[in-house]
Parts: sequence; C-alpha cells; structure tokens
Amino acid sequence: MIVSALATAVGINLGLTLLLASAYSLLRRRPPYVSVYSPRRPYAAPLESWLISAWCRSEDDVHATAGLDGVVFVRIFVFSIRVFAVAAVVGVGVLLPVNFMGDQLRLIDFADIPNKSVDLFSISNVQDGSNKLWLHFSALYIITGVACYLLYHEYKYISGKRLEYFMTSKPLPQHFTVLVRAIPITDGGSVSDAVEKFFKEYHSSTYLSHIVVHQTGKLRRLLNDTENIWTKLKNLKYVRYRPPTENPPRKFLGLFGGNDLLGKYQKRLEDLEENVRMEQSDAARKQEIPAAFVSFKSRYAAANAIYIRQSDNPTEWQTEHAPDPHDVYWPSFSTSFMERWISKFVVFVASVLLIIVFLVVVTFVQGLTYMEQLETWLPFLRNILEITIISQLVTGYLPSVILHFLSSYVPSVMKLFSTMQGLVSVSGIEISACKKMLRFTMWTVFFANVLTGSAFRQLDIFLDPKEIPSRLAIVVPAQASFFIAYVVTSWTSITSELTQTAALFYHLWGSCAKCCKRDDSEAPSMHYHSEIPRILLFGLLGLTYFIVAPLILPFILVYFCLGYFIFRNQLCNVYSPKYDTGGKFWPIVHNATIFSLVLMHLISIGVFGIKEFPLGSSLLVPLPVLTLLFNAYCGNRFFPIFKAYSTESLINKDKQERSKPEMAEFFSNLETAYCDPALKPIQRSSNSDERTAPLLSSV
Amino acid sequence: MIVSALATAVGINLGLTLLLASAYSLLRRRPPYVSVYSPRRPYAAPLESWLISAWCRSEDDVHATAGLDGVVFVRIFVFSIRVFAVAAVVGVGVLLPVNFMGDQLRLIDFADIPNKSVDLFSISNVQDGSNKLWLHFSALYIITGVACYLLYHEYKYISGKRLEYFMTSKPLPQHFTVLVRAIPITDGGSVSDAVEKFFKEYHSSTYLSHIVVHQTGKLRRLLNDTENIWTKLKNLKYVRYRPPTENPPRKFLGLFGGNDLLGKYQKRLEDLEENVRMEQSDAARKQEIPAAFVSFKSRYAAANAIYIRQSDNPTEWQTEHAPDPHDVYWPSFSTSFMERWISKFVVFVASVLLIIVFLVVVTFVQGLTYMEQLETWLPFLRNILEITIISQLVTGYLPSVILHFLSSYVPSVMKLFSTMQGLVSVSGIEISACKKMLRFTMWTVFFANVLTGSAFRQLDIFLDPKEIPSRLAIVVPAQASFFIAYVVTSWTSITSELTQTAALFYHLWGSCAKCCKRDDSEAPSMHYHSEIPRILLFGLLGLTYFIVAPLILPFILVYFCLGYFIFRNQLCNVYSPKYDTGGKFWPIVHNATIFSLVLMHLISIGVFGIKEFPLGSSLLVPLPVLTLLFNAYCGNRFFPIFKAYSTESLINKDKQERSKPEMAEFFSNLETAYCDPALKPIQRSSNSDERTAPLLSSV
Repeated sequence: MIVSALATAVGINLGLTLLLASAYSLLRRRPPYVSVYSPRRPYAAPLESWLISAWCRSEDDVHATAGLDGVVFVRIFVFSIRVFAVAAVVGVGVLLPVNFMGDQLRLIDFADIPNKSVDLFSISNVQDGSNKLWLHFSALYIITGVACYLLYHEYKYISGKRLEYFMTSKPLPQHFTVLVRAIPITDGGSVSDAVEKFFKEYHSSTYLSHIVVHQTGKLRRLLNDTENIWTKLKNLKYVRYRPPTENPPRKFLGLFGGNDLLGKYQKRLEDLEENVRMEQSDAARKQEIPAAFVSFKSRYAAANAIYIRQSDNPTEWQTEHAPDPHDVYWPSFSTSFMERWISKFVVFVASVLLIIVFLVVVTFVQGLTYMEQLETWLPFLRNILEITIISQLVTGYLPSVILHFLSSYVPSVMKLFSTMQGLVSVSGIEISACKKMLRFTMWTVFFANVLTGSAFRQLDIFLDPKEIPSRLAIVVPAQASFFIAYVVTSWTSITSELTQTAALFYHLWGSCAKCCKRDDSEAPSMHYHSEIPRILLFGLLGLTYFIVAPLILPFILVYFCLGYFIFRNQLCNVYSPKYDTGGKFWPIVHNATIFSLVLMHLISIGVFGIKEFPLGSSLLVPLPVLTLLFNAYCGNRFFPIFKAYSTESLINKDKQERSKPEMAEFFSNLETAYCDPALKPIQRSSNSDERTAPLLSSV
Repeated sequence: MIVSALATAVGINLGLTLLLASAYSLLRRRPPYVSVYSPRRPYAAPLESWLISAWCRSEDDVHATAGLDGVVFVRIFVFSIRVFAVAAVVGVGVLLPVNFMGDQLRLIDFADIPNKSVDLFSISNVQDGSNKLWLHFSALYIITGVACYLLYHEYKYISGKRLEYFMTSKPLPQHFTVLVRAIPITDGGSVSDAVEKFFKEYHSSTYLSHIVVHQTGKLRRLLNDTENIWTKLKNLKYVRYRPPTENPPRKFLGLFGGNDLLGKYQKRLEDLEENVRMEQSDAARKQEIPAAFVSFKSRYAAANAIYIRQSDNPTEWQTEHAPDPHDVYWPSFSTSFMERWISKFVVFVASVLLIIVFLVVVTFVQGLTYMEQLETWLPFLRNILEITIISQLVTGYLPSVILHFLSSYVPSVMKLFSTMQGLVSVSGIEISACKKMLRFTMWTVFFANVLTGSAFRQLDIFLDPKEIPSRLAIVVPAQASFFIAYVVTSWTSITSELTQTAALFYHLWGSCAKCCKRDDSEAPSMHYHSEIPRILLFGLLGLTYFIVAPLILPFILVYFCLGYFIFRNQLCNVYSPKYDTGGKFWPIVHNATIFSLVLMHLISIGVFGIKEFPLGSSLLVPLPVLTLLFNAYCGNRFFPIFKAYSTESLINKDKQERSKPEMAEFFSNLETAYCDPALKPIQRSSNSDERTAPLLSSV
C-alpha cells in the first residue's frame, strides 16, 4: 500500500466517522429515535452534548447504571489509552523518524512521498546491523515495563472494586445458594427427599431450604407459543382500534376478516393457557431432574458446601456456585451428563471447523491488498482496477470492510456453541463465548492474515516451534499496511455502534408493520462476548506492530479514544445490564494483554535476528520470561479474588447483617427465589410478561 | 545382539539371582546378619522358608506392617503381573511365532539359531504389508483393553482402601490441624497474637489452639554436635570396658590416652548441652517464623480452613494440610518465600542439567552394544574384544550393568532437589522426588537409549511433533536387544535388594570399628521415590516393545514375579514405614501406565506406517484418544479422593468419635503435638534420642 492509498482510507473513514457522529447528535433526541438511542433515559434533558456528558460522567455513575462489568469495560479503554499514549509518543517521536531516515529500502525522495510505500516508515527501512536498533530495543523494554505496571495497577484496582462491591451489596440469593448436580436417587425415593436427607445430615445447623429443578422443555415451548399468540392478539386489537388516519397494513386485513381472526386467536390462546396449566402441575409433580438449588443460612455455610467435596464418590453430589436467579439459563438443566460430554466434543470440533472455513475466506480477502494477485484471479476486472481511485479503494479499504462484516456474525455462533456446552447461567455462557471469540479472533484475523499464502500450508509453522520467531519476523511486517487500513476502517465501525444502524432499521420497520412486532421498549443488553475480543484485537495489533510499523500507533490511539467516549455514552443511555459477574471479565483482558506482550517479544527477537542484530536478539530473551513471571505473580496475587470470596469477607459480611431486621424477609423470599419461571402461573398484566420474554425466546 | 549373547546374559543373571537368593536363605537367620535381614522381626521362627511365607502373607498383614503405601507398592506388582501375563500369552503365543515365520529379514535357517540376530523375533521380520499385521493390530486393542480394565479396578480398590483407612484410623493430629503460612504481622505484635486474633475472629466456634514455628536452624546444628559427641563418648566407654579378648581398634588408643579423652568429651558435651538450653529458651522467646500449626475441634472445621481462602489478600494467611507430626521436615520452615521461589528455579535448571549430563554418559554406554563403534572408539581394546566370550559379555551385559550402577545414585540427588524446594513434609519430599525420578527415568533410560546417535542432535525430534511416530518406529525396534539385556540384568539387581549388599557391608564394617558408628538397630525406611520409578520403567519397556519385540515379555514377567516375592518379604521383615500417605503414590503409577500405553500406540502407528500397513495405522488413531478419555474419567472419578476427604467422610468420622471418652486426652495432646523436636529438653535415656537421630542428621 502506498501513502496516498492510506491517506484515501483515512479520509474516507474520518468523513464517515464524523458523518455518523453528527447524525447521531442530531437525531438522538427526536421522538421516533429516542427509544433506540436512549431507551434507558428517554426523559433526559435533550440539549446537553453527549460528548461532554460522556466525558464528565464519573466512574461511580457508570457503576450505578452498568454494574461492575460496565466499569471493567470502560477500564479496558482507559488502560489501552494509557499504554498507547506512551507507545505513540515513543513510536512516532523516536522510532518513526529513525525508520524513515534509514536507507535499507533506498527509496528516499522527499518530494514524492504520496507514491512511496508505507514500508518506508517500518523497521524494514533501517540499515541491517545498525546501532539505531538499540533504540528499538530500549523501546521494547520501556513499553513492556509501562504495560506491566499499568496491568498490575488495573488488576489491583478492579479486585478492590470487586471486594467493595461484595461488601456493600444487599443480600443476594446467589451468595446463600449452592447448585447441586448429579444427585443420586435410591430406589423409589424422590430427588427432593434425597436432597433433604443429605443436607439435613451433613449440614444440619446451616441448611435452610432447597428447590429441585424440573424438566420444563415442553412447558417452555408451550409458553413461547402462548406468548406469540398473545402478541398477535394485542397487535390485532391495536389495528382494529387504531385512529382512521393511519393506513391499514395490507398484509392483514387483505387476507382475513378482523372479527373471525380475533375470535380464533382468543380461542387458541385459551386452549394453550389451559395446556400450560396442566403441564405445569404435571411437571411440578413428576419430571424431576437430579439437580437442586440448596440454600443455606449464611454465605460462609454455602461456601463450605461448594469448596469441600460432598460425597465419597466424586461423581455424585457435585456442588457449584449458584448463579443469580435472573441469570439462570434453565434449558441447560434438561441435558444429561452424557449429552453435555458429547456436545463439548462436538463444540470443539465445530470451533475448529469454523476457524478453518474462516481462514479460507480470510486468505482470499487478504489477497485483495495485492493488486497483481487480484488481477490474476479476476481478469475481467482488470480495466476497472486500473482506475487509480478504484485501485486505492480496493487495496486500502475493501478487504477490511469484508473482514469487519464477516466477523460480525461470529459472536452469535460462538454464543450458540457455549450454550450447547450446558452452562447453567447466561453470564457463564457469555464469559465462555468471550474466551472462544478471543481465540477465534487471534487465530483468524491476526494469524491468518499474517501467514500469507495458503492458510493450511502455513499451519506448518506451529509444528516447528523453533522457527516461529524468525518466521513471524518475516510475515508480520509484510502485513503492516493491511492492518493499518484495518485499524482505520474500525473507526467507522465503532462509530456505527453509536448510530445503532441495525436496531434503528428494525425499529423503523417495526413502526410501519406493528402487527407482527413485539414491544421493544426494553433496553438491549451489552454483548461483552463480542465487544471485548474486538477491542483486545486492537491491543494485540498495536503491541505486535509497535517496533515493526509504529505508524499504526496513532490510528489505534484514535480508535481507543473514540471507543472510550462512545461506550461511556452507550452504557449509560442504551444498554441495560442483564447480569453482573462482579468484574470476572478482567482476568481475560489481563491474560490477552500478556499474550500480546509475549508475542511482541517473540516477533522482535525474530526481527532483530533478521536485521543482523544478534546481541539485541539475545538480550531480549529475558523479557518474555520476566513478563511470564510477572503474570504468574498476578495470577497468585489477584486471580483467586475473582474465583471466590474469602473467609474474611464472607464472615464479616455475615456478621454485619446478622442483626438486620430485613433478613427475615430475605430468607423467606430465598426459599422461592430459584423457582423455574416456566412453573410460575401466567400473568398478563403490563410488564410482568415482558420480563420473561427474553428468557423464553432464548429456548 | 545375537541369540547366543542373549543366552549368555540370561545364564549369568539366572546364576547370580539363584546365588544371591540362596545366600540370603542361608544367612538370614545367622546372628550377625539378623539385624540387617530382619530388623523388624529378629525373633521370628528361623526355619520357615521366606518364599512360602511371602506367598502366604495376606494383604491385611502387609497393611498392618507396612501401611497403605506398602499395600500400594505390592499392588503395582500384582497389576503388572496380571497385565504382562496376558501380554506374554498373546506375545509369545501368537506374535513371536508370526514374527519368526516372516521372511522380511530372509535369514531363516533353523539349524543355526544361536548365531542369528534377536531381530528375527521382532516385527521387523514380518513381510511389509502382510495381512499377518492384523494380528499385531488386534493384540494392541486387546492389551489396551485389559490394561485399562485392570487400571480401573486397581484405582477403585485402592481408593476404597484409602477411605476405609480413614474411617477406621484412630484420631490423628494431622486431620485436625492446618498449617498456616505467610502470616502478616502488624507492627510490634507477635505471630502468635496475630494467629490467635485471626482464628478467634473467623473460626470462633471451632478454633482449638496453635503452635508458632520457630527459627531452629542453629539449634539443630548444636543438637547434632551434641549427638555426635555423645555417641563418641558412649563408644569410648564401651571400648574401655570391653572384654579383653577383642582387639583394640587402633585408630583410637594409638592416638590418645583413654582417660584424658573421656574427660575432654564429657566437658565438651556439658558445654554444648548448656549452649543448647540457652538457645532453646532464646528461640522459644524470639525468632518466630510467620508460620503456625493451627488445630481445630473437628476434622470438618480444619477442612473448612484449608479449602476456603482465608484472607482477602490471597498471598496472606495461606493454609494447607498439616503433615503427620513425625513427618514434618522442620528445616524447610527456615527458608523465606523468596528463597523457595529462587530454589524452585535453581532446581528446575539443575534437573535439566542432570538429564543432559546423564544423556551424554548414556549415549556412550549404549554405544557399547555396537561392537564396531566400540572398536573405533577404543582401538587398543580390539584384540581383547575379538575373543567371543568377552565380546558377548560386553555387548550383552556390560552396558546394562553400567546403567544400573549410574542410575542408583540419581534418587538421592532428586530427593535433595525436592528438599531444596521447601516442602514441609518428608512424605511430600519423597512424592515430589518420585515424580522427578519418573521423568528422569523415562527421559534418560528410555528416550536417550532409543534415540541412538548424538543425544543432543536427537532432541530435535521433539521440536517436530509430526515426525514423532515414524521416527520412534525406526529407533525403538533398533534398541530392542539392548533393552532385553537390560531387563535380564535387572533380575540380579532386584535380587540384590534381598541381600542388602550395601547395608550388609556397612553393618559388618561397623561391627569391626565400633568406635565411630551409631546404633543401627532401627529398621531402615523404604525408598519409594527410587523403587517406584524403577518398576514403572519396566512397565514402560514391556508395553512399548509389546508388538515390536515380544521376546522381552517373558523376561519382564519374571522380573515382576521376583519383585512380588522379594518386596513382600522385605516390607514385612526389613523396612519400617516412616510415614503413611494413605496411598498417594497410586495416581503416579496410574498416570505413568497411561503414558506408557499412549506411547505404545504412537510407536505402533509409526511401525504400521513403515510396514506399509496404512489401514492399521489409521484404525489405531482412536486408541490413544479412547485411552486419554478413559484417563480423564478416572481423573474425575478417583483422583479427588486422593487429594482430600469429603464432607460425608469428615462429618461421619467426627460424629462417630464425638462421644468417645479418649477424645479429651487426644485434644490435650494435640495442643503440643506440633512442637519442634529441637525445642524439647534433651533426654539421654535409651531410645528417646534414637528417635530424633534421623531427623537431626537430615539437616
């Protein structure tokens, strides 16, 4: 890619970014858009600038509206901005001029910069074996030091927040409750009796109550049907009594007479509701699953039941943390142990297949950056491609757009995979999907792009570990221009988060065809499992190209700054948290950053080797070792805090609440907190059924 | 190696084995040898045959005399005999004739078997692509099935034994006690105060007492000196009053006058004992280490303190299982956290260096099996080597002897390494040393011998994982004759366990020079960390050579049968258990066997590939996968039992003893159970100091 192509890409994206931001600023307070752009604060003062309010908002405010997960999400941007501010100063201030003044590529001609390759700004242009490489060497130690210091600081800050959150939270059912699975049943006895007998025997002084989980798959399907019919009925009534100025939606009244339909739906709804009631009493009586939520009188007692193995046979009476009652993913309980075991294997195979399929597509896409290759593949396009602007568009812009587009469909597939694994909470599913997405993103977008040529053949590199650094040192710099373009394109994609293009179209279409839409007044939830890996990818790109192509750094910094403002705004106005993991996403971020740092070291070792700078290459070897030792320390120091609360916290919290009068009410509510919503009687008044809708539709 | 060389080796070793066994049978009841051959039962009836009594002894008897670890040790032989009985039947009955009838090596000449290579009996002799290879293929599935079935059976049996052992044991201090480390001290406060405050606050209802660990390194050195002087003094008195018929040991009376010496030692002993008393009161007052043994009122309460993190800061108040009071390795407490961290790294580097040094030696040794190579290296030996019997000795016997001899020094080095890591119990040190030895044995004895040629160059194989099966398939069969000889030599080495050659010489020398020996009436302890890896190596050899060279199987079966009789005898007559881990060595055995099975599969996949039998090669791929799945299942089903006891066991055991009158006495003893022996007042009456001697000498 030449400099002018890069400039074109920057121009287009800057334009699009500004356009989208202005559109958002103009539209966000207009009546039809308020329910899309700020479903959480529809009545806020319309004249404040969103940029200023995003800047002024305090972290406590983010915590109050988006939970600790929202805070963690914002801290990713804060951390990245700090690291890349330092990196950009060092990179652009020192390394970029040094690279540009080198003469390895022998192309210096200041007059004609636009037609020069972007490679002039990369380390490739530094004379082999030059003493100037010591600058790059020092920069690596500096940025690693800064990154590790900030990582430590963030880990400490967030684990402190997590403890504070626990100590100040009101009593929550999940802290007093344990999920017990693999309950063995003796002949003739029920699961409920077995649970009662076991816990009364071994936890006599602390056991409170239990709720056995029931087989409710059929019931959930029935309820879903009921829900659909009821929505149709509601819309039909609305259509019949709508003001005469509106045009009748054709689809409906053209086909049926209104009254017949109303009666028919009414009849069917009543039948279904009768069915549901029968099935509910049936399920509650029979169809027990050998799993139960067991509640205790204190948090410490619940922790005891989780961390000490219950039964002599380790495959029976398995205990784990109970999720928040609203966070429970009920369909998972229907699967047996064998089904979960098999689906784990299936998911593994499917994930590998997905990566391979994606690699093939990406291999094609990254070929677009090389015009010659494209012309060979698609000879009929040659004439068009020879037009300069088209050629610049195609090489500088198109591949990134395709990649962004394709990547946007993967998170939902990954979430489906995690759902299949039988995890019992929505938050657990999203954390698992987040890890899957991260692996997928690193593999496909980074490695596959870096390993030019046939993706399959290139996998050989991982079968020959010795060669990895020198191999990466060759292929990584070669793809610098592709990734610079990719980062620039991402400005538009992150700004389109602000304009919520998909939700907007859905909303507008829904307004036109009211008959078949559900009420969308509820705020959507944040998809951490797709957003976090995407942000971490830019961190990976920034670090791996830090010494190789420092030109990428300012673009990445702009990306993180945009993200900081946009997501602070969105978390407070648009997204409503569906669960609170208490910051459990941070260890994922920490580990991904450590991975990026070590990859940066490996690539640099290889690059220094190729640049005939063996001393630097050898003196760099301690750096990944020290980074991994630092990671091991952080793992010991902070990670346990994210896995479980300590005796100190649990007992202090228990003591603190022991004498509070509201605890009696809490304990009486606790006994029914984990009742399957499918077993609750149907209620059709205003909001109560909206609450269950997302759960039902996810079946 | 040709058949006659093998026959020579078998002849020599059979002769030596019988010789050693007869010598033992004759000598074991003679007065001077009884204290070496049966220190545990010096007054048993002398006329019973040891073979018959070893055969008749029940497992309960082994349990009573050697603990559960002794039972586990014997079960290794039982398991191996069962597996290799099946393997030998299949191997010698089916595979061996098939191999021998093949014509790939085109050497068949029945008349001249003694001069034929042992390779005639290996898979190399089967025609490439022959249908007979299906027999080898089926044999692999059969032996894997049998081995996995028996592994499951043994794991179940031993975990049952472990639970039974726990439920029937008398109250033991280690079940009620927790070792707390990294105790934070507030300014001016003592460790003891901090412990009391913390546990009274967070474990108010179950906390019983605590003992803080003190810095006693200097004290232990003083006590050791005292002990030495006292022994010298005792021996001196014995020499002065010995009957006049004995010859005076020159060394002594030739140098000093008896009376002077006696007075001098007496004076020095008194000075030292005064010093010890001062140091003891000093250590008890000051020199606290931030570690303590905290005892609880029930086993379940102690388990709570171990499995739930105590402090909000995971690096403080770290808890772990307390070892048996006699099993505590006190010197470990003197090391700081940083020292342990550094020594872990040093130990890692040292282990790698040890393997490398050993590999160099082994590379030389295994070269001895190839006469031509030896003649090139040592040309002056050519004349001697041309004598047939010498040549057969050198190729068939010498390398194995050197290897056995060198290997015998490694276990103590590995134990030293584990000691340096700062483990707080002797059993923990030996378990860790056992794992290190196992890795060392597999790497050096097996891999280094298998990877002929320069050991360093051959390490490349592990950097190129794809090539491993086909590479192993070439090198493993080539070393078959070396390992057959190695197994045959091991008959002698296992029988020399019976005659206790080293201990015998030490004892006899001690009888001559009484002056400087300590009393050796105490029975030695079994060195599980050196014996278990040695036995597992033969399992590995047997499985990896199962289809390649089935000729090895009967020799291995003989080894295991010898071992079974010999160790049942030794465990009851010679060794006295120093600790009881409750069978914690079994998971090591299980995992090593799984490793051997998977290695067997990999080698077979490679061998079938080379023998132009690609269908068999592909159909073998599921076998390692299934084996690893089986291992994962066993890991879930049984391994947790070896890590911790369950709530069910703990509470049942607590309930069972709650009303027993002897518990009051147990709890009052518990308060002082973990007192450092170095802080106890010196007692010089008969046996009490003998008890502390091994602990002191290990400083």
